[in-house]
Amino acid sequence: MEISKGYTVHLFEGLYCYLRRFLFRVISVGAVPYHIAFIMDGNRRFAKKMNLAEGEGHKAGFSALLSILRYCYELGVKYVTVYAFSIDNFKRKPKDVQNLMELMRQKIEELLHQESIINEYGVRLHFIGNISMLSEPVKVAVDKAMRVTAHNNHRVLVICVAYTSRDEMVHAVEESCKEKWSHLTQEPSKVVKNDKLNGLFENKIEKHSVLPSSCYCSCSCSLVKLVDVERNMYMAVAPDPDILIRTSGEARLSNFLLWQAGTCPLYAPSALWPEIGLRHLVFAVLNFQKYYLYLESKKEKKHKHKLF
Amino acid sequence: MEISKGYTVHLFEGLYCYLRRFLFRVISVGAVPYHIAFIMDGNRRFAKKMNLAEGEGHKAGFSALLSILRYCYELGVKYVTVYAFSIDNFKRKPKDVQNLMELMRQKIEELLHQESIINEYGVRLHFIGNISMLSEPVKVAVDKAMRVTAHNNHRVLVICVAYTSRDEMVHAVEESCKEKWSHLTQEPSKVVKNDKLNGLFENKIEKHSVLPSSCYCSCSCSLVKLVDVERNMYMAVAPDPDILIRTSGEARLSNFLLWQAGTCPLYAPSALWPEIGLRHLVFAVLNFQKYYLYLESKKEKKHKHKLF
Repeated sequence: MEISKGYTVHLFEGLYCYLRRFLFRVISVGAVPYHIAFIMDGNRRFAKKMNLAEGEGHKAGFSALLSILRYCYELGVKYVTVYAFSIDNFKRKPKDVQNLMELMRQKIEELLHQESIINEYGVRLHFIGNISMLSEPVKVAVDKAMRVTAHNNHRVLVICVAYTSRDEMVHAVEESCKEKWSHLTQEPSKVVKNDKLNGLFENKIEKHSVLPSSCYCSCSCSLVKLVDVERNMYMAVAPDPDILIRTSGEARLSNFLLWQAGTCPLYAPSALWPEIGLRHLVFAVLNFQKYYLYLESKKEKKHKHKLF
Repeated sequence: MEISKGYTVHLFEGLYCYLRRFLFRVISVGAVPYHIAFIMDGNRRFAKKMNLAEGEGHKAGFSALLSILRYCYELGVKYVTVYAFSIDNFKRKPKDVQNLMELMRQKIEELLHQESIINEYGVRLHFIGNISMLSEPVKVAVDKAMRVTAHNNHRVLVICVAYTSRDEMVHAVEESCKEKWSHLTQEPSKVVKNDKLNGLFENKIEKHSVLPSSCYCSCSCSLVKLVDVERNMYMAVAPDPDILIRTSGEARLSNFLLWQAGTCPLYAPSALWPEIGLRHLVFAVLNFQKYYLYLESKKEKKHKHKLF
């Protein structure tokens, strides 16, 4: 009886997997997003709703992450970014922070197991944020995970830990200043007197061709340029996201990828993170395709306009 | 007959106004947002939908703006920010850009009329963005509007023209660098050698108490600090928004207030901008109040936790 039940479950799982892959083949006829970012909101609320201990909510959240990663990679999405731990989360009770750090360490170790999704799809792991704020064992695990997966190049998973977007931007400015200072102090002739300073900051409009979304900016400061700041962003390891999904129904970015997600659509399903499923991903991708078609038709119109 | 019809219209208008103010009194029992920001999307689509010339869509959009401003000020909202013209809009056909500039000039002049809403509510006008990109007559009008309303202090209207958030951030960094350079070159002893440079950038976590939303950041660079960047933002004239409303049903920030709206809720009604009405504002404010209550109850819980 037990064997027959197991066989039925296995059969249904296989059928579901087959149907899912068929659905992805159909969807892939349209444009497939290159990069999807997730704000994994609602783990604690899920635990409360299901009368579980708080840690259990985060464990359920990790399982949901593994499922959603599988769906994304099956669909052909190259980059996935997740907001795992914000700098603001350090303000929680010390015991809670400690538990979360330990859970993070365990889950990073799990990700590196031979049979994990990371090895199955050849995923490169990037941990970005102010890593120095993490506990020592997590830092060691993070370092190992990045080193071990450094040669994977099929898929990329960016995990934001001890991250806020404002912190990322300030860090990028800081790094750019360091670079320029270093450059200028190595060439003393370039250290100018105050009266010559204004020449360094001529005001003209120039096009920054390296920008992911082309935009005109007023920056021509020879000290720190837009391209320097962009290069020094933690997120420089990935292109700008095409879709941002935030669970729990809240349409806020909560200090996540403010610089990078400025023009991408935000989809905020009401499901809590551990409840996220295939339907949410499919809905977001179909919406992206609609938007993509709209942009393409706009481009075409402009092109026609130039021709005639 | 004509007089009687006019009288009826007047009566209904008076009744509507009375009911609206009554509704606002009820809503004001809860928290009233201090600052609402709008992305006025859909003017051109509205013109297309109603078979109007493109410019008519923008004119209808301006009327909608006046109505929504009245509602906001009646409700007691102190700051309103609107995204009027993006730097990307300069990429439109030159004729379209020229028409929009002329319309902008006209509408700014209209705002300054004795009987306008600006004088009725004592509104201070701020035009922010890369003003140098505007046409000469618009620059003159902008300058006049800011000068004339400089002493108003009841309400504030921030109009973003030739604006994108990335441009704002780069501009702020540029200005901060200028300041620091100027400071350092005035005090030659502070121009350090390269080997001493690292001391300028010690890595420690410090709390920036001047931040609108308190956050911990890793910036302690003595060259450019987070507070310098914040002070040099165009939007330093207003606190961070409490609600961001974008019409046309698209939940994207489109390079608008990325730095400032990182944690505020985004409400994206499907109405096009000229169709925005009282119900959309009320819905957004009620949602804000719900969120505000949630935050307050969280704060209270934390406080209790500390007491016992």
